[in-house]
Amino acid sequence: MVGGHNMKAELISIGTELLLGQILNTNVQYLAQECAALGIDLYFQTVVGDNAQRLQEAFTQASQRADLIIATGGLGPTQDDLTKDVLARMLGRKLVIHEPSLDKIVARFRERKMPMVESNKRQALILEGSEPLPNDTGLAVGVAVEAGNTRFMLLPGPPNEMKPMFETYGRAWLQKQMPDAMPLYSRMLKFAGIGESNLENLLLDLIDAQQDPTIAPYAKPGEVTIRLTTRAPNQNEAERKMAATLEEIRRRAGNHLYAMEDISLEEAVVAELIRSGRTLSVAESCTGGLVGDLITSVAGSSQAFRGGFLVYSNAMKHQLLGIPMELLEGEGAKGAVSPETAGEMAERTLERTGTDMALSLTGVAGPDPVEGKPVGLVYIGLAERGKPTDVFETRHFGTRDLIKLNAAKRALYHVWSRLTGK
Amino acid sequence: MVGGHNMKAELISIGTELLLGQILNTNVQYLAQECAALGIDLYFQTVVGDNAQRLQEAFTQASQRADLIIATGGLGPTQDDLTKDVLARMLGRKLVIHEPSLDKIVARFRERKMPMVESNKRQALILEGSEPLPNDTGLAVGVAVEAGNTRFMLLPGPPNEMKPMFETYGRAWLQKQMPDAMPLYSRMLKFAGIGESNLENLLLDLIDAQQDPTIAPYAKPGEVTIRLTTRAPNQNEAERKMAATLEEIRRRAGNHLYAMEDISLEEAVVAELIRSGRTLSVAESCTGGLVGDLITSVAGSSQAFRGGFLVYSNAMKHQLLGIPMELLEGEGAKGAVSPETAGEMAERTLERTGTDMALSLTGVAGPDPVEGKPVGLVYIGLAERGKPTDVFETRHFGTRDLIKLNAAKRALYHVWSRLTGK
Repeated sequence: MVGGHNMKAELISIGTELLLGQILNTNVQYLAQECAALGIDLYFQTVVGDNAQRLQEAFTQASQRADLIIATGGLGPTQDDLTKDVLARMLGRKLVIHEPSLDKIVARFRERKMPMVESNKRQALILEGSEPLPNDTGLAVGVAVEAGNTRFMLLPGPPNEMKPMFETYGRAWLQKQMPDAMPLYSRMLKFAGIGESNLENLLLDLIDAQQDPTIAPYAKPGEVTIRLTTRAPNQNEAERKMAATLEEIRRRAGNHLYAMEDISLEEAVVAELIRSGRTLSVAESCTGGLVGDLITSVAGSSQAFRGGFLVYSNAMKHQLLGIPMELLEGEGAKGAVSPETAGEMAERTLERTGTDMALSLTGVAGPDPVEGKPVGLVYIGLAERGKPTDVFETRHFGTRDLIKLNAAKRALYHVWSRLTGK
Repeated sequence: MVGGHNMKAELISIGTELLLGQILNTNVQYLAQECAALGIDLYFQTVVGDNAQRLQEAFTQASQRADLIIATGGLGPTQDDLTKDVLARMLGRKLVIHEPSLDKIVARFRERKMPMVESNKRQALILEGSEPLPNDTGLAVGVAVEAGNTRFMLLPGPPNEMKPMFETYGRAWLQKQMPDAMPLYSRMLKFAGIGESNLENLLLDLIDAQQDPTIAPYAKPGEVTIRLTTRAPNQNEAERKMAATLEEIRRRAGNHLYAMEDISLEEAVVAELIRSGRTLSVAESCTGGLVGDLITSVAGSSQAFRGGFLVYSNAMKHQLLGIPMELLEGEGAKGAVSPETAGEMAERTLERTGTDMALSLTGVAGPDPVEGKPVGLVYIGLAERGKPTDVFETRHFGTRDLIKLNAAKRALYHVWSRLTGK
């Protein structure tokens, strides 16, 4: 803390390539997360090009409203790399050579048998009276400096230099600046098989009354995350502070809570399959292979996932799985998008693959209705050896891709639910 | 142009989730590229949280240094969504209901049989005297407004709402604001089956000498895009200016140029299949369903894609496709990751499905080698009725997901190449 309040920070990203949209600014996400974890409040992020006047404008303004300014970019050897020059002039400090960094630059050029031009030395400059932040994965040295009430940290732009520099040297320097800070602890609760608004309704009074820990919901297709956050002197104390809220959330929505860490639903499903020693196969119609793709995105999924059938057309449902054509089409047929077909798909897949469980999906991904059935209607079948087959009627919304993804996630939820008995 | 100079723009991204690093800010890259393409100069990007005072500070400052402010985020239904309130107060305008947007919100809730709360109406608000930007993929209406010398555009935060709104309504509004600007015309050339650096090498002298049209390469996994851009009074003139460059690029790399518009490789493959009246099936091992997922992401793919087999384990390759176990494992076996297995998978899939073509993939997605074969090695088989089967040995790099995606795209490239004879 700085004078009794949390440190207030501002991020400045420097580089014309960012203003032209040539690169995605992943640095700010990384540094924002790091600031949050350190209990540093971040109020603004600014991106500015390689222009001395506008860069100085950004620095000046940030120093009026923040205790800490972390800037990335503009530390390279070219005339466009102005960050240190601008800050030095603004603070009225000289730039001096950091000898170990210069030695490293000279050695690097010698080693690669490349001629070193004068401008390369610029990468070894630091502000007088500043702390150098060594660059273990590149050449430009970083800078940390306190000036009046404001602290500045200058990091390189390339993420593969910026992140190691921050992790090895930058974070420690920041922690030294905040000897009294209470760190922030978070726990991610991951839910599936329930929409964001339904989950929020279940937890509405908790969310409304939240203070410590804070409760923040986020949604991605097919999954909802709730992040509990609290400040505490240590992890144990943080856990203690979160326990009651956590318990209450579990009591209300535990049958949808598939993980208490930030893992995907497919990771949880694969882990449960492996834990219970069961194998899984799939038969996919409307999802076209997405369920298999999600499962096999998990390293080690081959221990539990065997394969299955893509039966996009009725002919394939008949040829590959032996589903009677009378069930699929013609007068009085139930149709391909029906609970009966979903059940048959799952059971016949179980039989043909010899796995312990088989999952099936058949539905309407859109954009047009099929068999007079509406876009977004998806039947999910779940067969397991020695148990009755379940069929779930589900309804999804949005684009074709979103319907596929939500249906695939819902199917995985039903597998998880069966495996865990929740 | 505004008074003889290019329009100067500033982007403001609104959302505490950005300041906490919970999401990556992809909106600014998209809008920065769009501004560049429209000839609008971008000097600053700012990110600010869901806080009225700081949001107003950001708006005020931006309006002092920019002609155009494009803000994303904060248009949702909750009390945290403040963007319109803050701008309305700042400009001294009332917020009024945009009736068509309200009708849509009411209809959406009715359709889903969900209760509509008062706060949902907030998403239909616009500033008095502003131009509504309809939201075709969500509920919150956007706003474009001119106030004094400054133009403001408020777009939703979710990229799947922001991009369609900008493309369909926002860009046209901006163009109306710059009647004297010579419009920018672009042509997207889409390549597959060739890496970015190899393509750049083929075109190096063209890229180095580029002036008008400009030639800008972009890479995504498995696909490379080159954007030709020129300013011209009209489309015909633009085409004329780009023709020679285009012709030269086709001459050098035409066998990888799958489209001259911004469509995905799977869209091109499905279109070619339908055009030629051929049907396709797949047998996927290491990609686990991703090829089927990609193909079925294309609306109308059911006209050409039939389905196939997920044969993740050797047992499935044997049970579902009848591949001899002696080929797959044991002393002296070629192994599952071999050209022989890829060829067998494709041919047996062709036979079992009765389609015109069958595509197979078998390889090592990682993180660990399989059968002593390196991570990233993938064999692709392509069988077609009455023709010899092709097997391609390919090598991919990166994470498990990236290897799967690059392998899937390469396989689709070989289908495209076969279909078009290129």
